[in-house]
Amino acid sequence: MGLVVQKYGGSSVADVKRIKRVAERIVKRKRAGNQVVSVVSAMGDQTDELIGLSQQITDTPPKREYDMLVATGEQVSVALLAMAINELGEEVVSLTGSQVGIITDNLHSKAQILEIESERLEKELSQDKIVIVAGFQGVTVNNDITTLGRGGSDTTAVAVATALKADVCEIYTDVDGVYTTDPRVVKEARKLPEVSYEEMLELASLGADVLHPRSVEIAKQYDVKLAVKSSFYCSPGTYIKEVAKLEKTNVVSGVTCNQDEVKISIVGVPDEPGIASKVFKKLAEQGINVDMIIQNLHYDDLNDITFTIEDDDLNQAKTILEKLKQELSYKELITDSDVAKVSIVGAGMVTNSGVAAKMFDALGSEEINIEMISTSEIKISCLLDKSEADEAVQVIHDSFNLSNLSGQDA
Amino acid sequence: MGLVVQKYGGSSVADVKRIKRVAERIVKRKRAGNQVVSVVSAMGDQTDELIGLSQQITDTPPKREYDMLVATGEQVSVALLAMAINELGEEVVSLTGSQVGIITDNLHSKAQILEIESERLEKELSQDKIVIVAGFQGVTVNNDITTLGRGGSDTTAVAVATALKADVCEIYTDVDGVYTTDPRVVKEARKLPEVSYEEMLELASLGADVLHPRSVEIAKQYDVKLAVKSSFYCSPGTYIKEVAKLEKTNVVSGVTCNQDEVKISIVGVPDEPGIASKVFKKLAEQGINVDMIIQNLHYDDLNDITFTIEDDDLNQAKTILEKLKQELSYKELITDSDVAKVSIVGAGMVTNSGVAAKMFDALGSEEINIEMISTSEIKISCLLDKSEADEAVQVIHDSFNLSNLSGQDA
Repeated sequence: MGLVVQKYGGSSVADVKRIKRVAERIVKRKRAGNQVVSVVSAMGDQTDELIGLSQQITDTPPKREYDMLVATGEQVSVALLAMAINELGEEVVSLTGSQVGIITDNLHSKAQILEIESERLEKELSQDKIVIVAGFQGVTVNNDITTLGRGGSDTTAVAVATALKADVCEIYTDVDGVYTTDPRVVKEARKLPEVSYEEMLELASLGADVLHPRSVEIAKQYDVKLAVKSSFYCSPGTYIKEVAKLEKTNVVSGVTCNQDEVKISIVGVPDEPGIASKVFKKLAEQGINVDMIIQNLHYDDLNDITFTIEDDDLNQAKTILEKLKQELSYKELITDSDVAKVSIVGAGMVTNSGVAAKMFDALGSEEINIEMISTSEIKISCLLDKSEADEAVQVIHDSFNLSNLSGQDA
Repeated sequence: MGLVVQKYGGSSVADVKRIKRVAERIVKRKRAGNQVVSVVSAMGDQTDELIGLSQQITDTPPKREYDMLVATGEQVSVALLAMAINELGEEVVSLTGSQVGIITDNLHSKAQILEIESERLEKELSQDKIVIVAGFQGVTVNNDITTLGRGGSDTTAVAVATALKADVCEIYTDVDGVYTTDPRVVKEARKLPEVSYEEMLELASLGADVLHPRSVEIAKQYDVKLAVKSSFYCSPGTYIKEVAKLEKTNVVSGVTCNQDEVKISIVGVPDEPGIASKVFKKLAEQGINVDMIIQNLHYDDLNDITFTIEDDDLNQAKTILEKLKQELSYKELITDSDVAKVSIVGAGMVTNSGVAAKMFDALGSEEINIEMISTSEIKISCLLDKSEADEAVQVIHDSFNLSNLSGQDA
């Protein structure tokens, strides 16, 4: 008895058989008395196939045309899903990002949602239709098609839920919830029944498979109730709420590992004010997010600036930094892709001392070298060698006794 | 030195290699000093693949969703073509039907263009860009995606040429012009250097491969110069002009054969006024075009109404007519798919007597039975058994001496 926004990822609609199954789930939810809006990704490997076609033409397509191309992936899946729902006897309409009015900025292939027009959605819902929305895409004010980049469909779903003031936003995925760590790495990993938005934000780096940080940010900002559920099994999943509404605050909720970052060191920069800001401003202008940052002074009055970015952005970042070489007069640019970021996350961490020490101890006991450290109120991250990542996750998971439900004794 | 609108069909962009070749042609035309707008169909069999996906779900998809699905085919091809042109160093932008503002009615999968907004096209051209337009598709005033049905990309091209007041509209196809008849059937078939709009309208039934009648109608109405050319070879092709501008008026320009019609007979209808109009009105409401019509009175005061429609429409027409059975109180409905319509076409026919007699003589000499006859000012059509179609075309072509350039002595 409410307005439900759902999101189904690419693996949930990978083939016609799965599309039919998703159609059944949606129809069931509708017939239980709910209004349903489902946001859908492209079918399985369709996006990769489209990218493969473009790569036969060029490695550097104009981003506007790239978005024009890949946005067809979701248009195909929403049309097919609408056909399958119609076949089950329910009124349904599919909408592209443009048709909904998902207005974005014009940073093609990494666009951010500026606004969602709710008129069309409301009109269709008022006619008792199920609405299927193409995820991952939007449109600029000039009517050019954009894509939202990684985690785009999650973001679409949460933004649609916000625009419609939905009662819940359900994210269906190929895992059945949020775990204390990756169950493929640590077999004792345990599913968390609930976590806070803040913890989820940090845990999201477990992999965009689960839930992308941008979508959690929007959910937190507009207080949208989130649920992460399995597309294949019926299980309660993990609920994501405000800290105040949690049953219990965990000191450490989980251990995450991100292998998609690279480390860049700008070696031998003169120790002058404004150098770092110049670097990071240039990167930000191109939409490149910088994660961990360290700056340290040499004996010879030269600085090293070391930071991490997503590995997808490496080539673009190198081009930008090489152009700045004369202006910054640095000595050398060193990049390292063989790194992994292992983090512990927990909303209760801020009121518990000794958590960092315990994590470093655990790594030290296995002689794992820490290259960089960064901390926030609810997270501690260590950058280390990629080859030692799995071992690090296991030893930290053990050390905080995370496989045990009552093991919150950090 | 002008504004050129071009159309490339699905076989011209069937794979990446051909897309690159089309890109080269377009860039060459641009660098020769022209403004170029190219309308493009979906890649080769992509539309069939999309339809194949939908057929795994249902044989009767909602037409709105069907259009949503198949319209992605052209969006893929325009994006890839734009990438290939960009790679050759020219500024380019691809546009969907919706982005151009190709406004259609809401008869999904058979929509008609109501209006083309030229602002976006003009804006892009004024920035010296090549513009690539998705053929075959448009958008309703409610922002729903439509497709134009058969010959849609030709129609898009001519309509765009009209809206932009282009100097010429070039239709690139896999044949190198318009022939006196199908060269696959009659090896002596001869390419016509020019024909009138009216003749082309009739000859178009040679096959939608060459040029669809709807596009010729629009070209005639707005006096758009048309040229049919080969996408693979450089040859002058066939120009389509007003009769007044032709070098010479042909008595008979060509012989066509349409095998895509079916014959429907409504047998034993009471001889009352308004019966026929009721039948044809109901068919027209569903967008079914009726071609040849015969009505004849029996001795028992009952009429037979016999007519032909496109075979694609047969199932829909039968459903409509079966629903009318009680109202019309007819005795029987007979359909026949084994028919072919063989026609002769020529702008000079109207001022020459004996043309029909010569055609019937030729068929009679081979003992080919004529089932229905219809005539217009520039065309005579005979419906006959499909198995005799090729023989009929050959004997008529011979009879009018069409393989001989000077053989216009009907």
